[in-house]
Amino acid sequence: MNGEIFSYLYEKLFEIGALDVYTQSIYMKKNRPAVKLSVLCIEKDLNNICTEILKQTTTFGVRYKKLSRMVLERRNIKVKSKFGNIFIKVAYYDGRILKYTPEYEQCKEISKNFNIPIRVVYDEINHEISKYIKTLSKGD
Amino acid sequence: MNGEIFSYLYEKLFEIGALDVYTQSIYMKKNRPAVKLSVLCIEKDLNNICTEILKQTTTFGVRYKKLSRMVLERRNIKVKSKFGNIFIKVAYYDGRILKYTPEYEQCKEISKNFNIPIRVVYDEINHEISKYIKTLSKGD
Amino acid sequence: MNGEIFSYLYEKLFEIGALDVYTQSIYMKKNRPAVKLSVLCIEKDLNNICTEILKQTTTFGVRYKKLSRMVLERRNIKVKSKFGNIFIKVAYYDGRILKYTPEYEQCKEISKNFNIPIRVVYDEINHEISKYIKTLSKGD
Amino acid sequence: MNGEIFSYLYEKLFEIGALDVYTQSIYMKKNRPAVKLSVLCIEKDLNNICTEILKQTTTFGVRYKKLSRMVLERRNIKVKSKFGNIFIKVAYYDGRILKYTPEYEQCKEISKNFNIPIRVVYDEINHEISKYIKTLSKGD
Amino acid sequence: MNGEIFSYLYEKLFEIGALDVYTQSIYMKKNRPAVKLSVLCIEKDLNNICTEILKQTTTFGVRYKKLSRMVLERRNIKVKSKFGNIFIKVAYYDGRILKYTPEYEQCKEISKNFNIPIRVVYDEINHEISKYIKTLSKGD
Amino acid sequence: MNGEIFSYLYEKLFEIGALDVYTQSIYMKKNRPAVKLSVLCIEKDLNNICTEILKQTTTFGVRYKKLSRMVLERRNIKVKSKFGNIFIKVAYYDGRILKYTPEYEQCKEISKNFNIPIRVVYDEINHEISKYIKTLSKGD
Repeated sequence: MNGEIFSYLYEKLFEIGALDVYTQSIYMKKNRPAVKLSVLCIEKDLNNICTEILKQTTTFGVRYKKLSRMVLERRNIKVKSKFGNIFIKVAYYDGRILKYTPEYEQCKEISKNFNIPIRVVYDEINHEISKYIKTLSKGD
Repeated sequence: MNGEIFSYLYEKLFEIGALDVYTQSIYMKKNRPAVKLSVLCIEKDLNNICTEILKQTTTFGVRYKKLSRMVLERRNIKVKSKFGNIFIKVAYYDGRILKYTPEYEQCKEISKNFNIPIRVVYDEINHEISKYIKTLSKGD
Repeated sequence: MNGEIFSYLYEKLFEIGALDVYTQSIYMKKNRPAVKLSVLCIEKDLNNICTEILKQTTTFGVRYKKLSRMVLERRNIKVKSKFGNIFIKVAYYDGRILKYTPEYEQCKEISKNFNIPIRVVYDEINHEISKYIKTLSKGD
Repeated sequence: MNGEIFSYLYEKLFEIGALDVYTQSIYMKKNRPAVKLSVLCIEKDLNNICTEILKQTTTFGVRYKKLSRMVLERRNIKVKSKFGNIFIKVAYYDGRILKYTPEYEQCKEISKNFNIPIRVVYDEINHEISKYIKTLSKGD
Repeated sequence: MNGEIFSYLYEKLFEIGALDVYTQSIYMKKNRPAVKLSVLCIEKDLNNICTEILKQTTTFGVRYKKLSRMVLERRNIKVKSKFGNIFIKVAYYDGRILKYTPEYEQCKEISKNFNIPIRVVYDEINHEISKYIKTLSKGD
Repeated sequence: MNGEIFSYLYEKLFEIGALDVYTQSIYMKKNRPAVKLSVLCIEKDLNNICTEILKQTTTFGVRYKKLSRMVLERRNIKVKSKFGNIFIKVAYYDGRILKYTPEYEQCKEISKNFNIPIRVVYDEINHEISKYIKTLSKGD
C-alpha cells in the first residue's frame, strides 16, 4: 500500500473514535516488507473502525481482540508559566500526582513564538510544574 | 537462531495450514536482537502449527490466543488483459466491488516474458481491471 | 529523547533546506532503544542543518558524509481529472515518461471533499493519468 | 521516554516475576517514534507488574490479555566439557531431547577466561553436547 | 510502493551483479512508513544497478557512496557427511580456518528428503565439519 | 547468528576503542531477518575493530567508510544534589551551556538506594541542574 495514505488514515481513525493508532514494520512471505496497523477503541466503535480500515486500505481482512487496561486516573490542569498559561495532563496514583506531561501542540506554539528549541520548552515547563506540584503536595 | 531457517519455515507453515505468517524484530534483555514469528491459523490446525514451530526453531515455547476477524467476501475472477488472461482477487463490500489485486506470481511471469518492470505490470493490469469493473457496475 | 519532538523537528528541518528527512529505530548498548535521524541536504545547508539538530535534540554530535545521487529528471504538470485540475510529479528517463505520482495533499483534499477513500482517489487519478500519458506518448 | 531507563526497567521487571520482557519499535500519530514494551507473567504477578510499569515509565496506561502457551518440558543438566562442567538447558518432546542451549553467562565467562570468541565457545559446547546426547539416546 | 515487488526486485538485482541486497524500515515525514533498499555492488555495475532500481521501483532518485571492505579469504569445499557430499563456504584468517557455513539450499533439500528439521540439519552438518576441520588442522 | 552474542560483543568493542555501537534490523534475500552492526571509531582503531568483528561474529566481511562529525564541546562537571554529588555531562555551544545529561549508572544507583523510580531520579536531577545552570549563566 502507498505509504502516503497512513497520515490521512490516522486522522480519519481518530475522528471516528480511535483511542490510539500505531504502526509496526513486519515482514511477510516472499520478502514482502509490510506495515501492521494497530488501533485501540472501545467496543461500540469496533464495527465502524474495522469498516473504515477495510475501505481506506488495501487489506482484505481485519483482526481484533478484547484487551483489558489498567489506566491511571488523569486530569487536565492549567498551570501558570513564564510562557503564559499552559495545559498539563496529570496522572494520579493512590491520590497523589505520579507524572504529568505538557500538551505537544502548545509546546510547539511556544517554541515557534519564543524561538526556543521545543526540547528546551518541554524542560522549562517541566521544571515549573515540578515546583507547582511540590506546592500542591505540601498544601493539600 | 540462524536467519536462513525462516525462508523454509514459512514454506512449511503454509503447507500445514497457516493462513498468514510474518516476523517482527524485537529486542530482549541483555541487548539481544530477536525475531518474533506470528502465525494465523484456524483452531483445528493450532496444535500442528505449534508443534512444527517447536521442532523447526530454537524456541522453548509458543504463545497463542484467539482472534476475531472481519473479512471481506472475496472471489477469484479471470479478466482478459493485453497480457492474456489474468487472475484477480476481488473483495466485495455490501455486494459491490471494493478492491482487487492481481496475483503476484502471474505479474512476475508477465514482467519476465514481456520485459516490463513489475511495477508497470501492476499499473497496467490495474488500469484494465478498472475499466472492466466499471462495465460490471453499470451492467449488473 | 521525547518522541513528540520529531514532528516539529521534521518541519523545522524542511524549512531550512532539508531535501529528505527520515528516522530509523536502532538499538544501543545497555538495551537502549534509540532513533537515528537521517537528513539529506545540499552542501551549503550542511552547517545550518547540523546546528539545528544539535539545538533541537538531545544529541551531543552529528555525523555526515558526502553522497552521490542518480536522479530522474522531473517536472510538475497539470492534468484535468474528473476531480478538477490536479498536479502530478512526472519523472523522465531517456526523454520518456517513466513514472508519475499525484500530490498527496491534493489527494487528501479530494478524499475529504468527495468522501471517497484516499486509496481510491490515488487509483482513479492514476487511471486518468495513464490515459493522458498514452496520448502524450503518441502525440509528441 | 529516555531510552536509558529501559535497561534498569528490564532488571526490575524480572526481579518481580516477569518471565519474558521485550520491546518493539512502533510509530504513533504525528511522526512519533515510540517503544512498545511487552511483558509475560503469570496471573498472580499481573497487578504488581502493571503498577511497576506505570511507576517507572511515562505511560498513562497498560494493556493486558490472557495468552495460552505450549511449552516444551525442560531440564537443566550438567555436562562435562573441555572447559569444565557446564550447565545446559535441555528441552524434551515426547520424552526425547529435542534441543538444548548452553547458558549465556557461562559461555561469556569461558570466552573471557580462555580468550576464545564467544561464537566459538557456543559451537564447541554444542559439539560436545551433541556427542553426549547421542550416548544418552543409545543408553536409555 | 507495493511490497510484493521486492521479491522480484531482489532476484533482478542479483542477476545483474548485486553482491548484497537488503531492506530496512524507515519513517518519513507525514507518518509515512517506507522501505530503504540497500545494494552492494562493484563500481562497474553501479550504473546498471541504479538504472534498474529507478525502473523497477517508484523512487525518483538513488543515492550511492563508495565503501571499503575487509573480507575474509573464502573457499567452497566439499565435505562428506552422513547426508552425502555437501558444500561448505569456509573463511580463513591468517591461513587458518576461522568459520564455515553450509549452503542453505542444500540444507533445505536435506531437510525435505530426510524429513528432519532444517535447524537439526545445520547442527548435524556443523558437528561433522567440526571434526573434519580438526583433522585438517592436525594434518597440514 | 545467535542473538546472545551481541551483549558480549558490545562490551568487547567498547573495550578496544569503539566510540559508539548500535544494531539495526535488516531484511535480506530469502526472507532472512538479520542484524546490521554499526561501530564508530577513530581511524587508528579501525583495523582492530574490524578484526574483532570478523572473529566474534559469523560475518564473512566488514564494510567501512570515513565520516565527518560536528560535535558539541563537552565537559563532565560535579553538581551537588539532594541525592549527594552527581556527575553531569554538559555540552556547550558558542561558550554557553546548551544541554546536559546525568550519568546513567549513577541514576540507577540512586534509584536503587532511595527506592525512587529512575524516571523520577532523572527528573529531579534535571530540575536541580536547571537551577544550578541558571546561577552559572548569571554568575559568569
